[in-house]
This record gives sequence, structure tokens and C-alpha cells, in this order.
Amino acid sequence: MGFQYLTNIPLEEARDGYMSFLAEHGFAHKTGTVPVAQLCGMITAAPVYAHICAPHYHASAMDGIAVKASDTFGAGETTPVTLTPEQYTVVDTGDPLPDGCDAVVMIEDVVNLEDGNVRLHVSAAPWQNIRQIGEDICAGEMILPAYTRITPAAAGAMIAGGVLKAEVICPPVIGIIPTGDEIVEPKEDPAPGDILEFNSTIFSSMVKEWGAEPKVYPICPDKKDLLKEELSLALKECDIVLVNAGSSAGREDYSSAIIGELGEVFCHGIAIKPGKPAILGACGSKPVIGVPGYPVSGIIVVDQLLKPVLDAWFNQPKGHSEEIKAILSRPVISGLKYEEFVRVRVGCVDGKYVASPLNRGAGVVSSFMKADGIMAVPQGLEGYEAGSEVTVRLLKPEHELQNTIVVIGSHDPLMDELSDLIHTADPEMNLSSSHVGSMGGIMAARRGEAHLGGVHLLDEADGTYNTSFIRKYFPNGGVRLVECVGRTQGLMIQKGNPKGIKGVADLQREGLRYVNRQKGSGTRILIDYLCKKENIDTGKIYGYDREEFTHTSVAAQIASDSADAGMGIYSAAMLYDLDFIPVCTEQYDLLIPDYAWETPMVQKLIEVLKSDAFRKRLEALGGYTIGDPGTVRMHF
Amino acid sequence: MGFQYLTNIPLEEARDGYMSFLAEHGFAHKTGTVPVAQLCGMITAAPVYAHICAPHYHASAMDGIAVKASDTFGAGETTPVTLTPEQYTVVDTGDPLPDGCDAVVMIEDVVNLEDGNVRLHVSAAPWQNIRQIGEDICAGEMILPAYTRITPAAAGAMIAGGVLKAEVICPPVIGIIPTGDEIVEPKEDPAPGDILEFNSTIFSSMVKEWGAEPKVYPICPDKKDLLKEELSLALKECDIVLVNAGSSAGREDYSSAIIGELGEVFCHGIAIKPGKPAILGACGSKPVIGVPGYPVSGIIVVDQLLKPVLDAWFNQPKGHSEEIKAILSRPVISGLKYEEFVRVRVGCVDGKYVASPLNRGAGVVSSFMKADGIMAVPQGLEGYEAGSEVTVRLLKPEHELQNTIVVIGSHDPLMDELSDLIHTADPEMNLSSSHVGSMGGIMAARRGEAHLGGVHLLDEADGTYNTSFIRKYFPNGGVRLVECVGRTQGLMIQKGNPKGIKGVADLQREGLRYVNRQKGSGTRILIDYLCKKENIDTGKIYGYDREEFTHTSVAAQIASDSADAGMGIYSAAMLYDLDFIPVCTEQYDLLIPDYAWETPMVQKLIEVLKSDAFRKRLEALGGYTIGDPGTVRMHF
Repeated sequence: MGFQYLTNIPLEEARDGYMSFLAEHGFAHKTGTVPVAQLCGMITAAPVYAHICAPHYHASAMDGIAVKASDTFGAGETTPVTLTPEQYTVVDTGDPLPDGCDAVVMIEDVVNLEDGNVRLHVSAAPWQNIRQIGEDICAGEMILPAYTRITPAAAGAMIAGGVLKAEVICPPVIGIIPTGDEIVEPKEDPAPGDILEFNSTIFSSMVKEWGAEPKVYPICPDKKDLLKEELSLALKECDIVLVNAGSSAGREDYSSAIIGELGEVFCHGIAIKPGKPAILGACGSKPVIGVPGYPVSGIIVVDQLLKPVLDAWFNQPKGHSEEIKAILSRPVISGLKYEEFVRVRVGCVDGKYVASPLNRGAGVVSSFMKADGIMAVPQGLEGYEAGSEVTVRLLKPEHELQNTIVVIGSHDPLMDELSDLIHTADPEMNLSSSHVGSMGGIMAARRGEAHLGGVHLLDEADGTYNTSFIRKYFPNGGVRLVECVGRTQGLMIQKGNPKGIKGVADLQREGLRYVNRQKGSGTRILIDYLCKKENIDTGKIYGYDREEFTHTSVAAQIASDSADAGMGIYSAAMLYDLDFIPVCTEQYDLLIPDYAWETPMVQKLIEVLKSDAFRKRLEALGGYTIGDPGTVRMHF
Repeated sequence: MGFQYLTNIPLEEARDGYMSFLAEHGFAHKTGTVPVAQLCGMITAAPVYAHICAPHYHASAMDGIAVKASDTFGAGETTPVTLTPEQYTVVDTGDPLPDGCDAVVMIEDVVNLEDGNVRLHVSAAPWQNIRQIGEDICAGEMILPAYTRITPAAAGAMIAGGVLKAEVICPPVIGIIPTGDEIVEPKEDPAPGDILEFNSTIFSSMVKEWGAEPKVYPICPDKKDLLKEELSLALKECDIVLVNAGSSAGREDYSSAIIGELGEVFCHGIAIKPGKPAILGACGSKPVIGVPGYPVSGIIVVDQLLKPVLDAWFNQPKGHSEEIKAILSRPVISGLKYEEFVRVRVGCVDGKYVASPLNRGAGVVSSFMKADGIMAVPQGLEGYEAGSEVTVRLLKPEHELQNTIVVIGSHDPLMDELSDLIHTADPEMNLSSSHVGSMGGIMAARRGEAHLGGVHLLDEADGTYNTSFIRKYFPNGGVRLVECVGRTQGLMIQKGNPKGIKGVADLQREGLRYVNRQKGSGTRILIDYLCKKENIDTGKIYGYDREEFTHTSVAAQIASDSADAGMGIYSAAMLYDLDFIPVCTEQYDLLIPDYAWETPMVQKLIEVLKSDAFRKRLEALGGYTIGDPGTVRMHF
């Protein structure tokens, strides 16, 4: 149960040092000769010169007749020149210029006479309508310099220049070795403790996009000898090897020792989060990288440390990422010891970019899927306050952000269905939603950081929903409340109700485990209110401070038997096949600030809300009362 | 020899009309189920929902011990809590939480005692260091909406969510039928009249980059029955068919008739240049596009008319192109009847973008290879004057333009070698050169449109090179003249000198064909001067007004026996194995304005000029006198 400390080398220092280390160890690309039909997208390894001229003969550029220009001199509107069949040749576009001719007259300008002669009313200039030899490319000219990506037009130009193959940089073969006793091949029904092996799929896809060729090895158990054997094999078959996990410093982490035995470790432990336990090494001239096991850590290490190795292989400039300035919607506290890479959603709202940090867990791969960009918090900085201007490296084109509806507010699975319906109706548009609860939605709208948010806030005083809160938080108006749905809220409980729960009053019972929603969510406000009404001391409810952020994650805890009850909506209970004790029906509305109302995206959303397709999706989810979704209930 | 008139439908009208036409004919994508390992880059055909939670069990997030949090309550610095082996379980990261435990204490915080007990000095909070079920993804959650590109992280999230395959849009199979009697398979040594079939390679590469699957058919001769047969076969095997050429209205252009017989022609003739004779049609529900034969026309038609069909197939937003505003360096005159697509080089010089039109010939495929962007001259506009601000749709990322040295001036093959050496030394940097002659180079530098230009201008008065011209055109200075090379200029003549040419005086001889360089080039100024010195009437030199833009293209004309002599540099004569009569040695210098001097790119160029590698390249080209290239000869 011992553990060793890793180094904590700053990222740039590690990267630059590793590149020099690899160069010293003789790391270099392989080249190969490839036929032109397969060249597109590859990188030249040497300059490409034309072998022949294009065109390689004087070619007619028109359909018409080829002539000797001097035969036509003097031709004019009133002084036509007549040519005999010996003086002209009919040519089509691309035909070679007949001997003795030095001009082509286009067909439209030729008058055919009955005796086979032709009449011209305009004289021809020498070399008119002729594509001269080398007009496009001259033999001996450099078509492409070395280390240049071959485009479709370049492939065409190469053939035109008589070049049927070229020396290019071979895609490097990247061996990927997944390791770990707990790792299993992807399956639909894994047992507890099984960790699905999806990192190889992620890394393979990443390196394929970068022009390399992945080769995934079988999962290697945590046995030092077996791993050493598999790495030796991969080093024979590949140009670069990734050992996935075993890179930490736990009981069964052998990667570093093995790389050291087969080659040399440059460093183990980099000052980044996630991704710290990365190993950089080489066996012979081949880079070997120990990639941490958590998927987010792995992606960051592959992006930050393998990509530069590939850039060096291809002798390409390092990837250029678009960067934008954005306002940070929530504070980010980071450790001083690391450079932290925080995945963020980025929305373009009311003319400015807003970045919202996603789940920072190293195991949360969906955070990378949802991310629009990455915000780096430099080493030595404690983080950023909400409202700070931060730099975000974008993971998607900037224009896509400008067509994305930013939804911040209360969670409901119908948001995902809306997202699907809008994107299907207009592929230019997207919807991204963050679940921060109803109060979070109101605050985001006040700060101008969202196009809309779902709200379902009960006014304890009069039992109404939403309006009193909006009056309070938007005293000067400027927002619309748009009808969405009525929802049935209730207690989600395990199938068959093994604990015999009848209502909220039972929650304080000894031995009963509750799972709650986060403070500020409408559902939390509801359960707080219900407890107060029934004079229940929430301090006595076991698990009342265990907070989840969505209805579905509360349902998931109950379904997995780590809790007995939780407040949530009917559709979430249905999804997990739970029993459900209805407690009330609430109004779930959309809060839409005026600045967002007129945008085409929000108007499209209103259209979708009113559609039959949306109604059908709600019916399939279940538990909704559908009135007139999309109707403005009130304009404040 | 008859010809038919085509329609002249504006591009947008044709495109929109065609899309509606296809929809009416039932054009739609196919979908298929694909295993997750192959999904990356594909487009979902339906929303993807998680089958299981990720994690699917409560997992330890740390290496440490799993405990029941309440057993540790009260632990503190001075009040440690001791746990017996029954009260804790050693866990590694990812291990499932043992029954009865609800917290994990990290290994660093555990003190091992000799009796197997452990001591804790900090109490554990319930659910600390545990990845709860669904932390990443909840079962039933939508992972991806329909019509969304699957990224590497999304593929990982799918596996994590128990999704091992998904329904995606199948890549459409695009049949490409090359037609024409004169078309031959790519070869290195084509006969006159052979047109190398490289369009299929270009179109295949283009559609592959757009996610489609090309299928190239054998070259079909200009026989109506054969083409009809091949098209029928392609319609069986493919989703979309391109018939390449035969789309014009010449003697042997059957495409339109055949598409009409097998289906329906929507239109034939679009108001674009190049690309006018395009045919848009459908056979059944399958789009058939008649693509013009000239490569540039073909690329434009495929880009402007096939790409939207593919976007519809994938239900993706139309491709977004970066656009910039640039100053036009030369006038562009265009016809009123067409929208013209002009390929341009774009340079970022002295803080502004400058667009230089490339060769506008429809057959000049290298213009597309060299192009940084496309400038559209709208239908109904006569063109743009030099100095106009124009909009350019970029074909490469904007940041690449900012690292490109813009060379405008006199042609010399050494510029290509410089380009290769600079890009190899620093792959971030590129060099693009336009050959407009020495005077053109001076004018470009005066207008602030180039980083540098090659100049070799003879002052007739005193026999000096360059300096007097620069004093005249830059009276206020602001430029450096940097030494490049001495070059041997002379008469290039056919191998073995069959016409017995001895010098410039022979050029006026009856039956001798000269080929000249364009006005404003240093070489033209030289031959003008030589003729004047020898009292030769240049009007008597046959071909004196036949102008080529580079030394190599002059050499190519002589090598192909369409001219007997031309003035040029030794290296060009060598390239074409011509005889060479030396006339003089001239100074070929680089003119570098002050605004460009300090840029890292120009400094890199100076470094390369001084390198051994450059010297070796010059020696290989031949005919150069090498002094101290890269030295500033004069700062004006």
C-alpha cells in the first residue's frame, strides 16, 4: 500500500524537453511513395516537380476552326475573308493544333459556305483561343514544396504535370495498450467493478483525425511481465506507443518501471490537472507515453503531449486553435500547483461570449463531448471569479456558437428533446442546456448569460408559480414567461415500494435514505416547502444533504439502491422503472429575456414548442400536462 | 457542326430550384447501423440515448480505504479514530464501493497500524471520493441529438453509456464517369491530343473530404449508347452520379440528352464562369450532375452544386467559409452575364490583406492549387478596379496567410527553392510568389502589397542594375536592396541550333520565330535595349509580341518547337535541355520595403539566403554567380 511521489514539471517545460529528448534519441518520420489517387490529404516529404508541361501540346481552347492567323488578316465586317478547306481544320476543345496553324476561330464566328469554304468577318490574332504548352504548369517547375498537404487540386496538378506518385510522410502507427485488471471490452451490461474500455476508441479516433494510424492491442492485465511483453511487441510493430493507465503511482502501476527497463523515462508527473501522472519516455527512437486512465486526463495528455509528437513527425506547424474571450459565468477555483484545463460550454448571448465550466471530474467523459472549448487556468493562479474575462480555446468553429441557444435553468429531459427537434428542423441551430436549477436560471438571465431557462418556482405565500419570483428579480421587466408544460412532481421510490413509503412524512423514518436536489432548484424549494408544511425537521432526514443536479440522476441513485426516495418528476421515475407517489402538479415555464426574444433561434424554438412533434415527444416521456406550449403567459 | 444555346440561370436560383426539384423526386439519405469503433466522424441519424449509467456502479474515485462515514465522525488532529479491519476495505481507483460503505478516505490520509487497524485524523463526509452512479451519464439521457457529428469524446461517452452501435447516415456513393474520346488514363508520357484524366482524382478527393465515397468508372468514349449504358450502371450502384464533360453543347456532347432519356433535366446552363455548361438533373430519386470538362469549371460546379446536395444528404448546415476583406492588387474585368469565380492569392502585408487574381483560364488547375481564396464577381457587375476592397472566401485558415511571405516581382526558379527551404526550416512559414516582372515588383512594393520582389532592371544610361530605378520610384526611400545572385541571360535556342542563330541580330531573320517576355519584365527591358543598341526594328521580329510570363514558359515554347528563340536565364535553358547563347550577366536582387524588413518571415528568408542549403540549390540549377546572398546592398 505504499505510494511514490511523482515529479511536477510545468507543461511547457515537459513538452519542450520531451521534444528535444526525442530528437536526441533519433525520433524521425518514415517516408514512402504513394500513387497519386491516394495522395490527397497526405504530406509531401520532398518538393514535387512537374515532369511534363500542362498542357503538353498546343491545344484548341474552343470548338471551332484552326487557321494560320496571317491568312485571316484584313478580315472585317464589310471585308470578309474566305478560307478554303486546305486553309482550315475543324477542331474541338482540347484538340491539338494542326501543323502550320497558330490560331483558333470560335465556331460562332465561322460562316459555313456551301462549297466547303468558310467566311470570316473578323481577323484572328496569332495564338488566340489556343492553350499554349505550359499555360498551366511548365515542366521542371516546383508543383509543391516539401512538407505540404496535398489538396484535391494539387493532386490534379500533379497528374497534369506527369507526376503519378510522390514521396510522402507515412502516417505513423500508434500502438495503444489498454491495461488494468478491472478493464473490460465494451459491453452493454457490465458487472459492478467492470470498467468499460472506451479510452482506446477515443484515442484511436483522435489520432485518426490527426492523420495517424491507430493499432489497439488487447487489454493487458496488471501483471508486470505481461505488460512488458505487450509493450515489446507494440514497439516492434508501431512507431509510437501509448500505454493507457498504470501510469499513476498506485499499487499496480508498472508502466513507468517497464518503460525504464525497455528504454528511458524522460519524466513522470506533469503539473497539469487532469493528467498529472503522465509518463514521457522513449524506447530506442520510439516515443512511449504513459497515459493516465481517467478518460478526461487521457484526452488532455494525448492532446497536449502526443499531438506535438505527431506535428514533429509530419513537420507541420502546431495545430492552430481559435481562441475567444468570454465572460466566466461561475467561479473556478483551481490549485496553485497545476495548470488546470477546464472544459467549458460557450454561448454567444446578447453580443458577448459566456463560458460555463462543465463538470471537472477526470472521469466525466461527457464533459468533453459537451465542451465547446477549454479554459486553461495557469499554474500559480488560484482560479477566476465569476464575471472575469477568460480566454477559451475553441473545440468547434466560432460560427457554430453563434447559432446555439443557451439554456440555463431547471432540468427537464424535455430540453434534450427540444434540442433534437430544433437541430433536426434546422441543422444550423443547436441547443445546449446547463442544469443549475430554477434560481440559477433566473440569475443567468439577469446577468444576460442565457437565451432562456426553465423555471418552476413555487410561491409559498399563494401557491402560484414563477410570476412572483420574476417580479422580484426583474423589477424593471424585460423578460417574457412562456408556457411550457405542467409537470407532476412526486416521490420516486423503489419498485414495489419495499420500504412502504406513503408520503413526505415518512422521509424522516429511521433507516430510510433520501437523495436530494441541489439548493436553488425548484424541486429543492418544493421539498423544503413540503417539509415545512408538515413540520418535518429536514436535519432528521438521512441524506437530505446528498445533492444531485438532475431528476434523472436522483432516479438513478434510487434505482441502484443507494437511496430509497427522492423528489422528482414523473418522466424520470418512468425512465428508471421506479414507483411514483404524486405530490403536486407544477408549472414548468420558460423565462426568455427580451434581448433573446427576437433572435431567429428563439423564434425557431417557439415554433417547435407549438409543434405536434414536440407534443408527441412529451406524451412519450409521460407525466406532463400539455396546454399551449410556446404561448407567452406574461411579458414583464 | 451545329450548336445549341444553353440556359443562363443565376446560380442561387439554379441551386435552390435544384434542391426543391430533388426533394420532389424523393431524394433522401440512407441510414445504417455502425459499431461504435467506426463511428467517429459520422453523422447520427437519430438521437442516441444512454442505455446504462456511467459509472454504472458507485466507484472509488481514489486509491484508499472504503468506510462507513459515520464510523469516522469526530476524527480530528488530536482525536484520531481507529478502524478495525472489519470497518474498512482497501480500494483502488475504480473499485466498486463495498456494501455498507459510503465514503472513501484517500491513501495519503490513512495511518497503518501494526495490528491491521488504521488510524484517521480527519472524519470522512458521506459520499466523499466516490464517483456516484450516473456522475457522468444517466441511463435514458440523450447523449447526442440526431444529425450530429460524432466526435472522439462522444464515441467514448456512447460506450460509457452502454451504446455499442448507432444509426448513422451512410456516406453516399458518388459515381464519377469520365467521358471523351481524347481522355486518357494518367500517364507520364502522353501523346499530343491526349488529355490526361485527372478530374476524377480531383472530384474523388473533394467528395472524400466531404464524407462521401467516390466510385470512379472507366473512361467512356463519346458514343451515346456507351455513355447511356455506363450511366445506367452507375445509377444502379451509386446514390449520386457525376458525368464529367459531354456537358457542353459541342458536336459530341450527349450528356444532357441521355440524362433526359433516363430521367429529367432540371436545367442545362448556369450563369457562372467558369462552369456555365453544367447540367442538373435526376434519374428517379438520384441526382445526376453534368460537370464541365475543364478542371477549374469542374471544381467550381462540384463545389457550388454537388456540395449542397451532400449537405442535404447529411442534413448538415451548408459549409461555413471564412471570409475576409482584401485590397485587389490588379483590376478584374468580368462579363455582365455571369457570376465569375476568380481564384486569388491572398497575402497579409503591412497589416492588410491583398488579393492578387491568378490565371483565370478554366483549364489552369494550378490556379486552384495556388489559390488562397475565391473572389466572386456578381452577375451584372463589370468587375473591380485595382485597389478596390473585395470579399474573399478563404480556402485555407486565415492564420496561415499571416505567416506567408508575399513575393511579387521578377520570375526566377530560385524562388520555388527558397519557398521549399523556408517551409522546411519552419513549417509555420510559407512563401508565395507571383511573376509580374521587375517593374510589377517595384509597383507592388510602392503600393505596400508585397513583402519583397525580385528585380533585375538595367539602366541603359550607365549599365547599372536596379539602383537608379529604385531611386526614381522610391524618392523618399523606405526600401532595402538585398543581394541575391548574378544571373546569366542569353538566347535560349533549340538543341543543336538548327537555325544557326548567333546573336540578337539574327532574330529579325525571315522564318525565325521569337517568343518574348511580357512588357515590364526585366528580361523584356533587356531585349528591348539590346535591339535598340543593334538598331533592330522589333516590329520585324516575328513573334516579338507573343508574351510569356516566366523564363520556363519561354523555354517550354522553344522546346516544343513553336518558337526558335527567346531571351531567358541559363537555368531555364538547362531545364529544357536547350542550347544557350550567353548575352550578359545581370544582377538579380531582392527589393524589400522597410515595413516588411523586421517581420520574422523576412528575417528567416535572409537567414535562408545566407545558408549553404540555398547555395547548393543554386549550384544545382546552374547559371548563377553567387556572391553574398542576403547582404543588404543599399538601404534607401
